Amino acid sequence: MVAHRLYVDEVPSDAGATLAVTGDEASHAVRAKRLTGGERIELLDGRGTVAEAVVAGVDHGRGKKGTAGCVIELVVERVRRVARTAPELDVWTATPKGGRVDEMIEGLSQAGAASWTPMLTDRGVVSPGTGKRARLERIAVGASKQCGRAWVLEVGEERRFDDAWEAGGSVTDGSPRLVLADASGAAYTPSGSARIRLAVGPEGGWSEPELRRAHRAGAVIARFGAHVMRIETAAVVAAGIILDSEGRLAAEG
Amino acid sequence: MVAHRLYVDEVPSDAGATLAVTGDEASHAVRAKRLTGGERIELLDGRGTVAEAVVAGVDHGRGKKGTAGCVIELVVERVRRVARTAPELDVWTATPKGGRVDEMIEGLSQAGAASWTPMLTDRGVVSPGTGKRARLERIAVGASKQCGRAWVLEVGEERRFDDAWEAGGSVTDGSPRLVLADASGAAYTPSGSARIRLAVGPEGGWSEPELRRAHRAGAVIARFGAHVMRIETAAVVAAGIILDSEGRLAAEG
Repeated sequence: MVAHRLYVDEVPSDAGATLAVTGDEASHAVRAKRLTGGERIELLDGRGTVAEAVVAGVDHGRGKKGTAGCVIELVVERVRRVARTAPELDVWTATPKGGRVDEMIEGLSQAGAASWTPMLTDRGVVSPGTGKRARLERIAVGASKQCGRAWVLEVGEERRFDDAWEAGGSVTDGSPRLVLADASGAAYTPSGSARIRLAVGPEGGWSEPELRRAHRAGAVIARFGAHVMRIETAAVVAAGIILDSEGRLAAEG
Repeated sequence: MVAHRLYVDEVPSDAGATLAVTGDEASHAVRAKRLTGGERIELLDGRGTVAEAVVAGVDHGRGKKGTAGCVIELVVERVRRVARTAPELDVWTATPKGGRVDEMIEGLSQAGAASWTPMLTDRGVVSPGTGKRARLERIAVGASKQCGRAWVLEVGEERRFDDAWEAGGSVTDGSPRLVLADASGAAYTPSGSARIRLAVGPEGGWSEPELRRAHRAGAVIARFGAHVMRIETAAVVAAGIILDSEGRLAAEG
């Protein structure tokens, strides 16, 4: 087991390379986690590169303000590429209120979704706000670190409901399977698709025109439980069910 | 669609019966939700009885402190019994820290678990505390109301890890299927069992003796995702996957 995981913008591609980590990542590791020389760590770029590295030395930056002067010197020992979780599950949802969007990002990261995209719907009332995307991306990085994801959950820009179905209907290679979560559907049936886009609606549900539009686009309507769920619970539970049932199908086939 | 749901200790068993609802339930309905005479409501006891009722009159209790004097007079129109969600899923978990236990109660209510029991494990560090059970029961009632459950999620008393396996091994009728969530297992395979007990461990994982003990008791070891999940995410996602896959099996059979 590794002592600590560090996320960096760029992981060196060769064993033997040296690297200095600074800023918040370094500060948290040396001040809160007390990382010291000689310890082994895991280095991730959040885009599938994972390296084992040894701490050559640390500078606590004592006497300096904030994270200034805090440095971890690393020597890379081994580098590997990790494939994305299959299938790639992109989750589009109406935006939950307040702190619930943070909970959702954490839950989706743990459940194994590839991305989350906030979606404007007829009955949705919340917009994540332009300044908030950077904050949500930081939550996704923190959650990925905790659960050891080699690929960070991507946080998409706000899209309209209709955008969710743009690739629908065409059965060309690479276009995602479209799934709409709604109580009117049957239980989810796994498909073997490599890419799946799941849409979860607002608390007030989908409008009739939205349901018709999704139908026309060839979306599968599926329900993911017997009860009404809040946006963030529905998104995380549905992601878990889709990935579990697709995984079981892949194992059987 | 009904205007409002009210939870009461006892739902009258006959149509035509009258009933006066007081206290917090009445206060929230008339003051916050502005329930008025003539509206139709749903009346639930949280133990499977659901009645449709009409509001005969309301007293706002104006000028009185708190909920005093707040009354809703109801006439029951129709009473029905609702069966529990099948299978009955009892979820035993190490207790998450702080507000995460509240999130879990809400999530398990929405996902359709029958009960939650806090469990002492070798590496678990949090005890829910004796005074907190009543508070968690209130959260379960609130969540049940929001998602329209006829049966409220039961909150059990604290138990030891070993208690989870007491019914194991025997294949007598009525004993639950025992499932232990752990990364060492395969994907969950549905069984058709009427009653399932799921155990979710603490952040530090199960101890070796615990894993051996569960094995000996005949527990199924299953994993519910590719990544490490926090207690409350694991519990809610695993509950969703178990109920979904058991439901699909029942529909096929």
